[in-house]
Parts: sequence; structure tokens; C-alpha cells
Amino acid sequence: MSASSIDLAVIPGDGIGPEVIAEALKVLEKAVAAEGVELKPTHYELGAEHWLATGETLPDQVLEDLKTRDAILFGAVGAAPGDTRIPSGIIERELLLKLRFSLDHYVNLRPSRLYGTVGSPLANPGTVDFIVVREGTEGPYVGNGGTLREGTPHEVATEVSLNTAHGVERVVRDAFRRASLRERKHVTLVHKHNVLVFAGHLWKRTVEAVAQEFPGVTHDYLHVDAATIFMVTDPSRFDVIVTDNLFGDIITDLAAAITGGIGLAASGNINMDRAAPSMFEPVHGSAPDIAGQGKADPTAAILSAALLLEHLGYAAAAGRIEAAVVADVEKRDGSARTTSAVGDAIAAGL
Amino acid sequence: MSASSIDLAVIPGDGIGPEVIAEALKVLEKAVAAEGVELKPTHYELGAEHWLATGETLPDQVLEDLKTRDAILFGAVGAAPGDTRIPSGIIERELLLKLRFSLDHYVNLRPSRLYGTVGSPLANPGTVDFIVVREGTEGPYVGNGGTLREGTPHEVATEVSLNTAHGVERVVRDAFRRASLRERKHVTLVHKHNVLVFAGHLWKRTVEAVAQEFPGVTHDYLHVDAATIFMVTDPSRFDVIVTDNLFGDIITDLAAAITGGIGLAASGNINMDRAAPSMFEPVHGSAPDIAGQGKADPTAAILSAALLLEHLGYAAAAGRIEAAVVADVEKRDGSARTTSAVGDAIAAGL
Ligand SMILES: CC(C)[C@H](C(=O)O)[C@@H](O)C(=O)O
Ligand SMILES: CC(C)[C@H](C(=O)O)[C@@H](O)C(=O)O
Repeated sequence: MSASSIDLAVIPGDGIGPEVIAEALKVLEKAVAAEGVELKPTHYELGAEHWLATGETLPDQVLEDLKTRDAILFGAVGAAPGDTRIPSGIIERELLLKLRFSLDHYVNLRPSRLYGTVGSPLANPGTVDFIVVREGTEGPYVGNGGTLREGTPHEVATEVSLNTAHGVERVVRDAFRRASLRERKHVTLVHKHNVLVFAGHLWKRTVEAVAQEFPGVTHDYLHVDAATIFMVTDPSRFDVIVTDNLFGDIITDLAAAITGGIGLAASGNINMDRAAPSMFEPVHGSAPDIAGQGKADPTAAILSAALLLEHLGYAAAAGRIEAAVVADVEKRDGSARTTSAVGDAIAAGL
Repeated sequence: MSASSIDLAVIPGDGIGPEVIAEALKVLEKAVAAEGVELKPTHYELGAEHWLATGETLPDQVLEDLKTRDAILFGAVGAAPGDTRIPSGIIERELLLKLRFSLDHYVNLRPSRLYGTVGSPLANPGTVDFIVVREGTEGPYVGNGGTLREGTPHEVATEVSLNTAHGVERVVRDAFRRASLRERKHVTLVHKHNVLVFAGHLWKRTVEAVAQEFPGVTHDYLHVDAATIFMVTDPSRFDVIVTDNLFGDIITDLAAAITGGIGLAASGNINMDRAAPSMFEPVHGSAPDIAGQGKADPTAAILSAALLLEHLGYAAAAGRIEAAVVADVEKRDGSARTTSAVGDAIAAGL
């Protein structure tokens, strides 16, 4: 990364991915131009459509090329649910998860904030402003498992969750560090250690150990089932949640839902050691049902671009994007706007 | 089980367990007496308190004795979270889960219904009336895993989810059978087959196969993360959910939360083959913070007793309990009543 330009990989993907990414780029370009920084995007055609055309998910050479970029902006991938031409989950695993794992994106950062007037499905949500630090490279996501006697009455299928001290400690430390920079300075570990004893105890012990390094940060623990209850009855209790890959997947979708929907939920897949580029993506999927109609909300993609700038050290530009988003969101009254109208409005608000 | 008496094992457990079970027994006794059936309860002292006093969780001999009963009514077990005298999770695993596994409780049945005036945290919940059929004897709950190099920077901890055709098929068939008896006749499989490929595909294939036996029942699929979104944005879309042990644990707590809280959530751990007694328990825990104060809501325990009667073939008595609960719940205005006052009111309403 040079001070005066950002070498950005762009993976628009499928469905509404290209539509929302176009708006994110519009806003991103304007935000950095104000600081004399040039955005140099390189587009990569990857995703379900690309797989149908070529049979490729993520060729080694493309992965190597991506590794040379400063960061990756990712739209969404995935075919329509009914599309039987594409083996289920192959794009998710061989492209999205392969990127997260190959680029060692161990911090899957997902902020949840309820903006003033945005409709939460909760009657009394209160003030909601927390972040989930989801582990991104281990747990039940490692693809370690198998099937014996497939298709017979004696079939056995296994899934192995792998958890390492190395993997847990770095993400727990990241969560405590982020908490130490926030007002409430509180970390909640979400797991299920009363049942998943081995992984659960590694997480618990690690939290206790890392907490010693952060005397100003308090912490507590919730089983994942109880966490979902608090998410709908008292979400304002959360400040920083740290959790494993699968629990994080589940509770961040729930968190997005209670803060006005996945149209607003941004995420970063971050390699905090900067050993490889980090990747920023809206939490939502490719939504093939509304693709190509200009109906998709680009806000989550735009907020993901702000996370990207923050990660690259352009905190001021990131802050301006966030402020423009908040201003736009607070004006929303439920009337329909096109994808590009939303992008234009946020860009104009910078 | 004889036609004129029910040989009932009662495990009140810890905290509020004994308080809510006392009310459930009061209602149960009256409901069956009206049909000339005598309730013959045998109390078992088990739980955290019992462990502290004796070091026993579930002795083999007690388990054998339990196997001779018609059914088990279970309160709640577990020490106060801060109680460091009890190794974390030991009571849950060596008593509660051991019962579910030893008695082959493969259908963990959890109905969710929003009663008229009961406060849901959702602004517009709509009509909520679904059941979750959670697998109860497999998945990540099997306790299969381990720890290597514990406490070192090279620690690795694993958790293995075990899934068998036998285990999945019987619970999926049960879900379709239950759906076929309901008005909407719809089954939703909840899993995460795009990531947990091996287990996920066994579940998907099994649903497709079993669906053939039930041409009148429709079915669809949701990833568990998406299911949590619908749980708060459109819970009325659900009729019968079938899912694995861990996903079922998570979404039933969420389901309880949106239908007015775990004070109302009942459950059955059912052995549909009747090879061993089934066990009925409120979804809530032992709540040590409010124990002994007469504050606990016994409704979930009472509804669990109704599920018990239904399972034993006393559908009319079960229906009368449910009707009395609905009548009581619809009259609630938020003013405080003691545990026994609620039990008395429901018993009087029979
Ligand atoms: C598409 C899927 C593999 C992915 C995940 O499970 O991580 C998605 O749900 C997410 O949360 O980013
Ligand atoms: C106490 C615990 C082991 C149990 C579970 O995880 O099944 C509880 O949460 C439940 O849902 O009944």
C-alpha cells in the first residue's frame, strides 16, 4: 500500500453483488479522493456465474494475484437456491471460505448498531451498539469430517470442530483490545462449554488468561442459547462479543436482524498481522430473487468499505463514510429508492 | 402403565426445580383424577445439591430404577453460575444429557406458541404456533472429542459431531408425522449444509427421502443463520422445524424468547418406540437467583406435564391442562403472583 493509492481487489460476485459493489466503489473513491488518495481497483470475475461458465472456483494463480493487493472488497456469491446445476455449497466453500482460510482472516468483525429510525423488529430494542468478533479460520468450519456407508441405512456422517490455542488466543486478544478502546470495555464470551467441553474449556481458559493483560476490561460468559435470548430481550447489554466461527455465524445474522436487517450489516474478514490482504463484505448474500432490479440496499456494502478504509489506516475517510450513512439512514422513511439512488445520496453526503 | 394409574418418576432437581414441579404435580394429579386415574409419583433426589452432598450424579442403579417407570417429570438442574465447588457442566452432562442418551430420547419436542396477551419482545409477532423437533441423541452432543497439549501454546481441542442414518431418519420421520397431523402440514429442515457438508447432506437426503412417504406434507430448508432471522422477522412462517441437537438447542431458546419467555416453554424428551420412559421438562434452568422465593413461573413445568399426559395417551386430560393454561395466561396483566398462586389458578381452571 502506498500513501497515495490503494491497490484494491474487487470481487463483485453474483446476484446483487455487482450492484451493491458499484455503489460502494462510488462512495469509496470519493471518500479517499478527498484525501488525495487514488483508488486503483482490479476486478476479478469469480462466483457461481463464473463457475458455470468456466468450472473454476478460485484458481491458485488468482489467489496468488489477490495476495498482492492491499485489500479485497467482496460483494456476494451464490446461485439461486433452486439452481441444481451448481453443487450445493461449492461456491461458498471453494471461494468464500477458501479466501478466509487461505488469507488467514482470523478476525471476522461484525459491528451491530441500531440507527435511530431504522425499523427493528423488536418493540423496545433500546440502544444497540456492539461488535461481534467471530473467529474466522477454525471451529466447525474447517471442512474436517466424512461420510461412511453413504446412502445406506448404516451411514455415519461426522463433522470435526478443530480449535487451537494459537487460533483462539489471537482472536480473544483482538476482542479484548477492541473492547479496551470502547466506552464500556466489556467482553462477552459466547460458547457452549457445558456441552462442548473440550473446545469450550480452551475458549474459557484463554479468555481468563488474556483478561489478565487487560485489567481495564471486564468480561462475562453466556451459553450460545442464552445469548440468543438476550439478543432479543436485552441487546443493549452487549459491547464486544467474542465467539467461535459457527456460533458467530448464527448470532451475527440474528444481530443484523434486530438492528434493522442485513441490508445494513457490514463485515470485515481481517488478518490483523497484515500477512495477507483483508477482505470486506456485506453480511447479506447474493439475493438472486431481487438481482438486476435496482432494489438491493447498498448500505451494508458501503459500510463494509468504511471498515476497509479503517483497516488500511484511513480512519478519517472511514469516519466520513459512516457519518454519511448514518445521516442517510436516519432520513429513511420506508419509501423505495433504487440501489444507485442510495449510493448517490450517501456519496453526496460525504 | 396401567389404565388406572401412572407410575411417575419425579426429578425436581435444583433451584426453582422443586417449586415448579410441585405445581405441575398439583395440576397433573387433579387432571388425571377426573378420569379416574391415580398418579403414583416417586421422587428422586438428583442434581447439583445432591452431587455436593454425595458426589453422585446418576448412579447406574437409579438409572435402572427410572427405566421401570411410565414417564419422568424433570424440574431443572444446575448450580449457581458462581459456585466453583461444582465442575462446570458436570450435572448437565452426567445427569440431564445422560438421561436423554441412556433412555434414547431421540425426539426432543419443543412447541412454541404465542398466547394472545403474553408479551413478546417483537413489535409485530403475528400468529406464532410451531413445534421444533430437535434431535436428542446425536450431533455435537455426543461428547466425542479431546484435548491435546492442554494448557500449552500448542493445545488442540476437537469436538466431533456424530450423525447416523438411523438417528436422523427416525427423527425426520417423526417431524413429518407430526406435520401431517397439523393444519399447515409443513416441515422446515434447519441445518448448515453449505458448510457442514457431511452431516448436512445426510440430513438433506433424509428429508427428501422421508418426504416421499408424506405426499400431503410440504417442506423447505433454511440455514440456521437465516432461521434466526426469520424467527424475529416472520415467525409465523414456521409450522414444524426439524433440526439437529445443537441447532435445536439454540433456536428453541430463541423461539421461547419471542413467544413470551422461557417461563412458558415446555419440552418433551421422547422415546417414540416406548423402549424406555420419556422425560418432560421445562426448557428453563434452575435459576438459583430466584430460588426459594416463590417467584418462579410454573407454567412451563405445567405445560410439560400436559405433554407427558399426551405422550401416555391421556389426550383429553392433556387438552384440559392446556386449555386451563391458555385461559390463565390470557388473563395475565403483569402483576406478580407467587408460584403456588399460579399453580392453584391453573388447577382451579381445569
Ligand atoms: C455463505 C456462508 C458460507 C457464510 C458463513 O457461514 O460464514 C455466511 O453465512 C456468512 O456469515 O458470511
Ligand atoms: C443444560 C443443557 C445441557 C441443555 C442442552 O443444551 O440441551 C439445555 O440448554 C436445554 O436446551 O435443554
